[in-house]
Amino acid sequence: ADIVVLEGDGIGPEVTAAAVQVLQALAARYGHQFELQRHLIGGAAIDASGEPLPAATLQACQRSDAVLLGAVGGPKWSDPKAKVRPEQGLLALRKGLGLYANLRPVQPHAATLGASPIKPHLLAGVDMIVVRELTGGIYFGDKQRSASAASDLCEYSVAEIERVVRRACQLARGRRGHVVSVDKANVLETSRLWREVATRVAREEFPDVTLEHQLVDSMAMHLIAKPRAFDVIVTENMFGDILTDEASMLAGSLGLLPSASLGEGKVGLYEPIHGSAPDIAGRGIANPCGTILSAALLLRHSLGLDAEAACLEQAVAAVLDAGVLTADLAPAGEAATTAQFTAAVLAQLD
Amino acid sequence: ADIVVLEGDGIGPEVTAAAVQVLQALAARYGHQFELQRHLIGGAAIDASGEPLPAATLQACQRSDAVLLGAVGGPKWSDPKAKVRPEQGLLALRKGLGLYANLRPVQPHAATLGASPIKPHLLAGVDMIVVRELTGGIYFGDKQRSASAASDLCEYSVAEIERVVRRACQLARGRRGHVVSVDKANVLETSRLWREVATRVAREEFPDVTLEHQLVDSMAMHLIAKPRAFDVIVTENMFGDILTDEASMLAGSLGLLPSASLGEGKVGLYEPIHGSAPDIAGRGIANPCGTILSAALLLRHSLGLDAEAACLEQAVAAVLDAGVLTADLAPAGEAATTAQFTAAVLAQLD
Ligand SMILES: CC(C)[C@H](C(=O)O)[C@@H](O)C(=O)O
Ligand SMILES: CC(C)[C@H](C(=O)O)[C@@H](O)C(=O)O
Repeated sequence: ADIVVLEGDGIGPEVTAAAVQVLQALAARYGHQFELQRHLIGGAAIDASGEPLPAATLQACQRSDAVLLGAVGGPKWSDPKAKVRPEQGLLALRKGLGLYANLRPVQPHAATLGASPIKPHLLAGVDMIVVRELTGGIYFGDKQRSASAASDLCEYSVAEIERVVRRACQLARGRRGHVVSVDKANVLETSRLWREVATRVAREEFPDVTLEHQLVDSMAMHLIAKPRAFDVIVTENMFGDILTDEASMLAGSLGLLPSASLGEGKVGLYEPIHGSAPDIAGRGIANPCGTILSAALLLRHSLGLDAEAACLEQAVAAVLDAGVLTADLAPAGEAATTAQFTAAVLAQLD
Repeated sequence: ADIVVLEGDGIGPEVTAAAVQVLQALAARYGHQFELQRHLIGGAAIDASGEPLPAATLQACQRSDAVLLGAVGGPKWSDPKAKVRPEQGLLALRKGLGLYANLRPVQPHAATLGASPIKPHLLAGVDMIVVRELTGGIYFGDKQRSASAASDLCEYSVAEIERVVRRACQLARGRRGHVVSVDKANVLETSRLWREVATRVAREEFPDVTLEHQLVDSMAMHLIAKPRAFDVIVTENMFGDILTDEASMLAGSLGLLPSASLGEGKVGLYEPIHGSAPDIAGRGIANPCGTILSAALLLRHSLGLDAEAACLEQAVAAVLDAGVLTADLAPAGEAATTAQFTAAVLAQLD
């Protein structure tokens, strides 16, 4: 299998290095051959070539079986007046690969509940997956700027809504059969279309799946007030961005959560939901868990290696259970480094 | 003073009735004359006149000193294909009165921490106020709909950003001098303009105030992970909508939180941040606290009656302290009704 590795910026190189070590160990253990190719994206690509997504990077990704990404961005490239920004590289990659469905599973782990701001009794048994639309909405609509004003256009087509709702309903079939669709249909026209299309797709194609609707403001509340109530959540791009960062607090740290971005083709993009964390970059203390678990999703969704994915997820769970926690989760002085956490996962895989 | 009362829909009539009783008691105690006039808005207005904001209602509000509102909306008027919707009445009222700054204070109360999903040690000392831009952004931009697609335009002008940031900085001066401005400047053009203007206003006009920027996704996380870190938060319309519902969980219930919507003129609009809660409407169990505390904000911001406002806030605090809690906060079987809670507040005012 051909895997493109995009380290990106900040802690990106550190967390992808950890996940690559783990992938190589699994390849050895199960007798697979993974060809890894590194390419540039984000700030690192801007520095090298002036472009946040060089053509060579996009082409390599298009030809690959799967892409593993760290994170992009940082203060060095954050001048609001800058013409190119690292984030454009990530958005262009998602769009260029047609990855319209971003899966973000949230399953709090007993060992990390202490780090969550949420009361533990609310978290037992929480197991949800957010399906975020990833190539439409206000992220990709026309943007205008004049001296006195600015605008962003949020657009959705019926086809864009259908395909992501369908993906969410399919996922629900393999789970508890329950989908909550999140919108702001009492104010937005795109949300009213979203609600109509979601209702029709669920009724016509998934009579076995229960679909409910929630307004995004209520959802921001219910997500933490009664997290056990959710199975699959499907929503548009920007709402998904906000709600999944919020949902990471159920798990205890943004550093724990993986994601898989999928389209119609086989190539998927796998990245932790955290950012480039420039404040801790280069110090060897980043939590590689979200990226390692993203590698597990890569094994499952792009390579069809379900047993290997499950083995890796169990290894990570065992390491957390054993109390090996990075600085985002552990009390000061008791934290494992990125290398120590990774070594513990590798030891489990032996 | 002339006060317009807009009961609206669902629990709106019940919670405004409670707040009106309290206002009348305060008027008697302090020797004020409040002229109360009821008008229609939302679904009730659609039923009576076909319009969610009848001209008579807007005119009465424009001529008044202050407006007290319950909530609008409900399933009866929620057909996605409906031509008029209750929410349009509320949006038109906010716009028609020029109420660009929506203040939403969040101060968790010891007696209600049990109802919060957040761990109590994170909540001690939390005291923040969210200033939500209320008459711009994607709520008011051009909306389009065709058979195959829909769109909403998010627009902000420099002037719209300046005035709401200024209001937030002024508020911060009377508090801890710290403002966090929330945007999505790594993706949205309106957010980049927002960040530039906020930075300039703070630097040029408020050198004594500290301004920080946060991305909305991170903010959804930090708001619950370290709520004590926030003093004044300023953000655009939609982000403010989402973040304040989330922030209500710090207090324990959406039913507790009041809001004040202010413009350049003297007339302000005061409403709880909760919705019309059709599921519990007419049962006499709604929490009137958010509306009663909105009446306190009305006394302070529109009528300049600071002592009366403080007296009312203390009365509410005393009632909560005494364990008089409505069904959103109390264990089943131990809940006070709307009338019991209101009577307890009135008793404190005696
Ligand atoms: C870096 C940024 C463009 C990105 C997004 O908003 O999609 C990130 O926040 C994420 O959630 O993957
Ligand atoms: C009813 C709705 C239009 C309104 C809003 O989104 O502004 C409500 O959610 C609020 O927060 O006041």
